[in-house]
Order: sequence, then structure tokens, then C-alpha cells
Amino acid sequence: MKGQPLEWRDGRLRILDQTRLPHRQVWLEMDGYRDVAVAIKEMRIRGAPAIGVAAAYGIALGARDIAAGDREDFLKELDGVCREMAATRPTAVNLFRSVARMKATAVGEKDVLQTRKALRAEAERIHQEEVEASRRLSFLGAELLNDGDTVLTHCNTGALAAPGYGTAGGVVLAAWEQGKKIKVLADETRPYLQGARLTCWELKQAGIPCTLITDSMAGYFLGQGKVNCVLVGADRIAASGDVANKIGTYGLAVLAAENGVPFYVAAPVSTIDLSTPSGDKINIEQRDPREVTHFQGRRVAPAGVEAANPAFDVTPHTYVSAIITERGIAREPYVTRLKALLSPSLRGA
Amino acid sequence: MKGQPLEWRDGRLRILDQTRLPHRQVWLEMDGYRDVAVAIKEMRIRGAPAIGVAAAYGIALGARDIAAGDREDFLKELDGVCREMAATRPTAVNLFRSVARMKATAVGEKDVLQTRKALRAEAERIHQEEVEASRRLSFLGAELLNDGDTVLTHCNTGALAAPGYGTAGGVVLAAWEQGKKIKVLADETRPYLQGARLTCWELKQAGIPCTLITDSMAGYFLGQGKVNCVLVGADRIAASGDVANKIGTYGLAVLAAENGVPFYVAAPVSTIDLSTPSGDKINIEQRDPREVTHFQGRRVAPAGVEAANPAFDVTPHTYVSAIITERGIAREPYVTRLKALLSPSLRGA
Repeated sequence: MKGQPLEWRDGRLRILDQTRLPHRQVWLEMDGYRDVAVAIKEMRIRGAPAIGVAAAYGIALGARDIAAGDREDFLKELDGVCREMAATRPTAVNLFRSVARMKATAVGEKDVLQTRKALRAEAERIHQEEVEASRRLSFLGAELLNDGDTVLTHCNTGALAAPGYGTAGGVVLAAWEQGKKIKVLADETRPYLQGARLTCWELKQAGIPCTLITDSMAGYFLGQGKVNCVLVGADRIAASGDVANKIGTYGLAVLAAENGVPFYVAAPVSTIDLSTPSGDKINIEQRDPREVTHFQGRRVAPAGVEAANPAFDVTPHTYVSAIITERGIAREPYVTRLKALLSPSLRGA
Repeated sequence: MKGQPLEWRDGRLRILDQTRLPHRQVWLEMDGYRDVAVAIKEMRIRGAPAIGVAAAYGIALGARDIAAGDREDFLKELDGVCREMAATRPTAVNLFRSVARMKATAVGEKDVLQTRKALRAEAERIHQEEVEASRRLSFLGAELLNDGDTVLTHCNTGALAAPGYGTAGGVVLAAWEQGKKIKVLADETRPYLQGARLTCWELKQAGIPCTLITDSMAGYFLGQGKVNCVLVGADRIAASGDVANKIGTYGLAVLAAENGVPFYVAAPVSTIDLSTPSGDKINIEQRDPREVTHFQGRRVAPAGVEAANPAFDVTPHTYVSAIITERGIAREPYVTRLKALLSPSLRGA
């Protein structure tokens, strides 16, 4: 698979530095779990599913490097590693889910050697599951796209964000592979420019026609009837179906509804958090204001000007036409449909 | 008056280069009308009223430099000057109104010397009228703002855009001068960053608290109930009340309506164009895609990626809570109210 955000081979983890894209492809060697924590914090790797996978490998690396031979001491130190990893970013739920799975794995094992091995295996399993989920949801979602459609996207939601195919970007790619001539209008996605830097890069590699616009132009094209659907990813989906996603998503959802254009969310079930009842309970990350006052290190605004930098917003479920997951496409009432998707007993039914 | 976009003194025109703000204040000496045309095209001076004033002075400079002593030859050459000036930018109507006034002035005069003098005087009159209109509409509009309000703005609408007080920015300034503690949330306004570069600079000079956000964050703050009103300028207002303004305005208007927040437009009557029946008839300028793929000269998107760059969008009048002009505040039905504002017979009544 091309364009993956990380590589795990023989117990070594490499992360593609997304801050350097599209101009340079720089692979960062992760020497320990702290490197992974820093890479997540600095958004060298980003996208909810990718963060979840990286965190799992990070904890496996942390376990490898804990010197303690005593199991109790080992678990105590591992707990510290998990806490540090969980503290990297607050909004994407995949991160916390990964950390919880790794912790549960450690508790289930007998000795330190065995635990290290089990943690490596669990990280690989999380990775494999995400890749598989991404592929499945991409092809399920592709059914919603028609030949000739123009899809409006926000942020980056290809394989760089979700190992495998991606989420919203994966749906576009799958439709393209089915022979549908899709065109993409890609929001640049200020302040971090994931759309301009990453989405355009991925689409170009896949040969999918793409037109870059500023976030403020989405309404213009929606209003002109030039968009067949808006398709985004998610960082956390509450039990109600409210969707936390990259800042600007809420505005797109409102504009889509106003213009009668469907608004689709694509995400693996690992992004659904039934323990969060509704969107207003989601912790929204506030990032460094310098990402807004500066542009790639250069000051744009006058010195001393304040800036706000919420990294995500919440789209109420009433604006969401469908949520595309690897277990099926959910529609209203989300509160029962999402629960059903996550219920193991119903899953096989 | 501080922070003016141009200076006319003893027949010489200087323009403050807004592409260099906020870091440097560079005044450009205009040697002839072509310099003015280039400055408008390259957005060294921008904002509908400011463009109108600059174009008038540009034509006065053009008239000064026409060598022809014969009146008919002179008028023919002046016609070329006016055509070039009118071709600089297509959306703001103030430009065409200024050019038309200058042309009418030339036709009314007897000899070349007299015509040159009359054109200078007419340009000064247009400038003075805009300054006065700006002051009046600012204080009229200030009545709509309450002590403690947070105002969301888009693009730049202070004195840099409209000589005197500004339009939307002028309303904020007038309310501030009345002692109302206004706070501003300023959209950065991609791709040209008028908000980050110019609005923040003006507000900082006036001592008005300002928080810079990306355009994509407006929905987040509106949704959280943190905004008391959205206040923007206009580049052209159709007879119906549809408003062409900086790209992104339409999205703000929809989000304001969705959240029950008033959406105000502030503009002198020189921006109202009764000959354009509705917004879909307004010519929207499409600018160089490099303004989107590049950021201050540096490429952001991968090489070869297409981009769109519509500079304006149209907000249907149904989203507009009020239009603030120097002759009063208009509300629905705009189609009759705007006509009344522009009717000389009703004006004095």
C-alpha cells in the first residue's frame, strides 16, 4: 500500500513527517515512546485512526525500553508511558481507545517478556484492524457516490490520516477504483493546511482531479450547485451522532443543509464513543495561537495580536446525512443505530 | 485622520501599499494613471470605496498628462484612460460609478484646461463625499451595537478600505468612540489575509480588543453563542438587497442566521447598484490561482495542483438583517427601501 503514514518493521517504527509534505518525504525514526508522543503532539502524524495506531506502537516501544524486570514495577512504569501517550492530544477518541486496549493487554499477561510480546502483537492487531476497517468503509461509502460527482472535502482524510485507504478520502479513492469519474474540491483547511498540503498530494498521486479552494470558498461552490456531496472524516462521534471533526466542518455541514446537499461522515467504529452522550461533552483541543498569527514560521498578523485556535468543532447530528463505517452506513436515529453498530451481538446478525 | 489609504496633495497622489502591511508602511508615489491602475489591480489599494476614490484621482492624473490641446482629441484620450481604469477590477461598483462621474464632468466643460481643473475638483469631491459618508454611516450603525458586544468581522472594512472611518470597521470604531466596550473577532480572510494583516493592524492602532481567527472558526464561535452580531462591508449591493462581498461572506451570513445572530452590512450608497436587479447578475472577479496555491510567494500545495480563486460571493438579501448607509439603515423589503435611499426627492424629505 502506498502513501502510508507509518511503517513498523522488525520492532522498529518510522513515521512520515507530515509537516514536511508535500515538498519533502522525510521519514522519522522513532527511538522510543517519547519520540512518538512528540510526533503526535507536533502533528507530524495526525488523523484520528493514524494517531490511534501510532500510540499503540509507541506503547509497545515504551514497554520494550522499560528496564524493570519485576512485573509490578514494569506495569507501574507502563502506566506512566500510557498516561504520557494519552496526554498528547485530547479530542480524537481513537487515541484513548488504543491506550485502553494496550493497557488491558498488559494486565492479561503473566511475565514481563510475555507482556512485551503481547503488546507488540496488540499494536500490530490495532494497525491491521484499522487498515481493514478503512478498506471496508471506503468501499461501502463508495456506493453513495455517482459517476461524475464533485465531492467537497475538508482537512486530510486519506491514508495519511487513516492507514489503509483513509476515511472520507478512502471513499473517494474506492469510488475512483470502481471507475467513477469523481472530482474533488479540496478545502485548504487553515491553519495547518492539511487540505492544501496533504489531500492535494494524495489525490495527485492517485490521479484524481482536484481543485484546491480556501475554506471560505466552500459556500460559493455549494451555492452555485457545483457540489454533489460534502464528505468528511471524524475525530470523535458521540452516542447522539454529533461529530467532532477538524475546525470548519460545522460550517460546511450548515452550508450543505442550506443548499440541499448531502453531508456524509466517514469513520471507523473506533471513532465512535458511546460513553460521550453528545457533542457538547467532547473536549476540544485549543492549540498554539501562533499557528494562526504565523504562517510556516513567518508572522502574518501584527505583533501582539491575540488569536484563538480551536482545532475542532462539533457538528450536531441533525446536519449529518449518513455516517459511513466499516460495519455499515448509519442514518438517523443515530442514537440507536450507532449503538447497534457497536454491539457485538448485533454485529454478526 | 489616521490610517488613510491614500493622500492627495498639490496634485500629487500617494497610495499606502497594503500588500506590505502590517510589517511596513510603504507609500507609493503615483506618477500617472497607469500607476494607479496597477495599484488597484495588484490590490495595493483595495476596498470598494477606496478603489472608487483612487480611480477618480487616477483619471485626474491621466487628464493632466494628456498632451492633446484639441478638446475632441483630449476627450478621446481621456476615454481610453477611463476604460483602462474601469478594467482594473470587475466587482466593486464604486469604481464604475467614479469613472462615470469623471466622464460626465469632462463632457460638461468647455476647454482642456478647464476640464483638467474640473476633473481634479470632481475627484476631490468624490473623496470628500466618501469620507463624509463613511463618518455618517459609522455613527448611524453604531446605534446597533451595545456595550460589551463581540462583533465578528470579515476582510478589512476600516479606513484602509473606505477613506474616513471605514464601513463595518467604521461602525465598530464609532461605537468604541461612544464608549461602548466592543470586542472584535476578526476572520483572517484567506487568501489575501486582509483580516489578519489589515484589520488587526487598524484595531490595534485604535486600541480595540481583537482576536484573530481563521475563516473556518467563525462557525465554532457563532455556535457557542460568543458573537452578538456579524458586521461586514460590501462591494456591490443589488437592487434586491443581495450583497456581493469578500469571498466567505455568504457562509458567515448562513451561519449567523442558523444561530439567530444578526448579520449587518455597512456600505455607503455609492455601493448600491440599482441597475443590477439581483445578486446573480453581479460579475464575480476570478483572481490568480497562485494566491491560493501559494502563501506570500511560497508554494504550499504540490506543484501542478489546480486552484480556484473567486474573490467575492453573493449573500442573498434574505440573510441580511440590515444595510447601514449614510442615509439611514435599510431593512426588508430592500427592493423598495434601497430605491428610496437613492431617490434624491425622498432624500431630503
